[in-house]
Amino acid sequence: MEILRSVKNPSIRRLISLRHHRRRRAASVVLVDGVRPTQRALDAGLQLNAVYVSESQAVGDADAACDWIESELGSAHVGHVNRKLRFTSQGVYERIAFGNHSSGCVAEFSAPDCSVDKLTQDLEPCDSHVFFLVIDGVEKPGNVGAIFRTADAAGVNAVLLSDCRTDAFNPNAIRGSLGAVFTVPFAVGSQEEIKGFLSSRVQHVYSMRVEASQLLWQTELCERVAVVIGSEAQGLGERWKQWDCDGVTRDVAGITIPMAGVLDSLNASVAAALVSFEAARQRVAHDQTES
Amino acid sequence: MEILRSVKNPSIRRLISLRHHRRRRAASVVLVDGVRPTQRALDAGLQLNAVYVSESQAVGDADAACDWIESELGSAHVGHVNRKLRFTSQGVYERIAFGNHSSGCVAEFSAPDCSVDKLTQDLEPCDSHVFFLVIDGVEKPGNVGAIFRTADAAGVNAVLLSDCRTDAFNPNAIRGSLGAVFTVPFAVGSQEEIKGFLSSRVQHVYSMRVEASQLLWQTELCERVAVVIGSEAQGLGERWKQWDCDGVTRDVAGITIPMAGVLDSLNASVAAALVSFEAARQRVAHDQTES
Repeated sequence: MEILRSVKNPSIRRLISLRHHRRRRAASVVLVDGVRPTQRALDAGLQLNAVYVSESQAVGDADAACDWIESELGSAHVGHVNRKLRFTSQGVYERIAFGNHSSGCVAEFSAPDCSVDKLTQDLEPCDSHVFFLVIDGVEKPGNVGAIFRTADAAGVNAVLLSDCRTDAFNPNAIRGSLGAVFTVPFAVGSQEEIKGFLSSRVQHVYSMRVEASQLLWQTELCERVAVVIGSEAQGLGERWKQWDCDGVTRDVAGITIPMAGVLDSLNASVAAALVSFEAARQRVAHDQTES
Repeated sequence: MEILRSVKNPSIRRLISLRHHRRRRAASVVLVDGVRPTQRALDAGLQLNAVYVSESQAVGDADAACDWIESELGSAHVGHVNRKLRFTSQGVYERIAFGNHSSGCVAEFSAPDCSVDKLTQDLEPCDSHVFFLVIDGVEKPGNVGAIFRTADAAGVNAVLLSDCRTDAFNPNAIRGSLGAVFTVPFAVGSQEEIKGFLSSRVQHVYSMRVEASQLLWQTELCERVAVVIGSEAQGLGERWKQWDCDGVTRDVAGITIPMAGVLDSLNASVAAALVSFEAARQRVAHDQTES
């Protein structure tokens, strides 16, 4: 069992350099820390380039390491993962791992295609219930992670990041999402690209705006709908005022959540949770009325 | 205008030491960073001990500094604040301020009484709509801050922190709440103390549990109700299974939010937001039916 013990080893040097967002983008890779998010990335079909495990996890024995990987990542991925397995000393592992150094492994994947075109190809034709969440200009990786975690739980059909100002695969986003960035379909694109995507797929586009008068709770969200939420700092301003529905320009109707206290805004990830679960609530109520 | 220029100055040394939670607790003080949270603490009636401003804010002139404080904190507090105003060099200010060093001021207040007894004295007798949020065993200051921010917006009557494992006035909690830790009534206490508080004040106590079958959305939340949410890592386990309602032991009914995806839990602050705004939604719907 070969063990990488030096940070001067070329593959370790490369991995450390990939902690910089720009280097990851240039190399078109995603780094995933921890066993559970790695499993979710494998389940989602991302292409694994390498997985690094500390010798302290591997208990100094290649067979034991393979057993450990099998028990942790599930047997479906074992043959595939074992061919990509690399062992490091604990010292080297602590240099390449982000955050909690006991999270088990660091995996490098080829970055998946997150374009609007790819999502358009991948998504099944819309059925009667479709709910898309559009997040405009999000900056904080922690918010991205929280939004994906909630979107997974609420059954959002896809998340669309319009003019996104962070990396959706930032380590804090992956960690905060508990790996849901790999389970929820999503695309990153400009406002115009995302409006093009929505044009033939939804009947209504709403935007969350503090100044709107229509309540979220009085808005029909259980047909084919998208809701746009602005970044925390700036709100939506003049963005997302109109969209084209099958060639006809329509207004994006503003909706709001009443604020009872002294503060005048909600955190973007809380707003996303309230909207996504309101759609889920209406769907449950609708299905019960139908049956 | 006297300017504190040395970190060896006794009051500056003391302030720096108060960045440690244990020192703040021993001294029974709260440190508040930034103008807006300081204003909220003043509005809430906390007793101000001192407020520190960098000479770069004060533009080297005591009158200008007083004008600045007046414009920032509002005229209601000016006379009071001016007597407690201390100026520091920018270098000293950067040592005493937490996080963003351009947030304007660092204020030291006497810690308010957050006991259940005090909340019992302060709260008006319950009217027909009462909603209390109980957070059990919360550990992360960021979650505390997010929960208070949402509780302010949703009009929660009080937050009860049962067996809280962090300082509700941790700088990250104050910052994350945008100062709502000063606007939302709350108490910190043991499970038993909080059950005692609830005993005569609510009709129903519910707990959020992944394994429960009753949906949040099918639970009546618009009368006199408390909902308990567990800490993220451990859930509620055997805690909060029963409570005493006016001397009669009753079950705490479990309620749940359906999870559509691969993850099996929500972040505690997201769960708190969904529960608090569901209560608000039901209140709006109820009031419309009444009128």
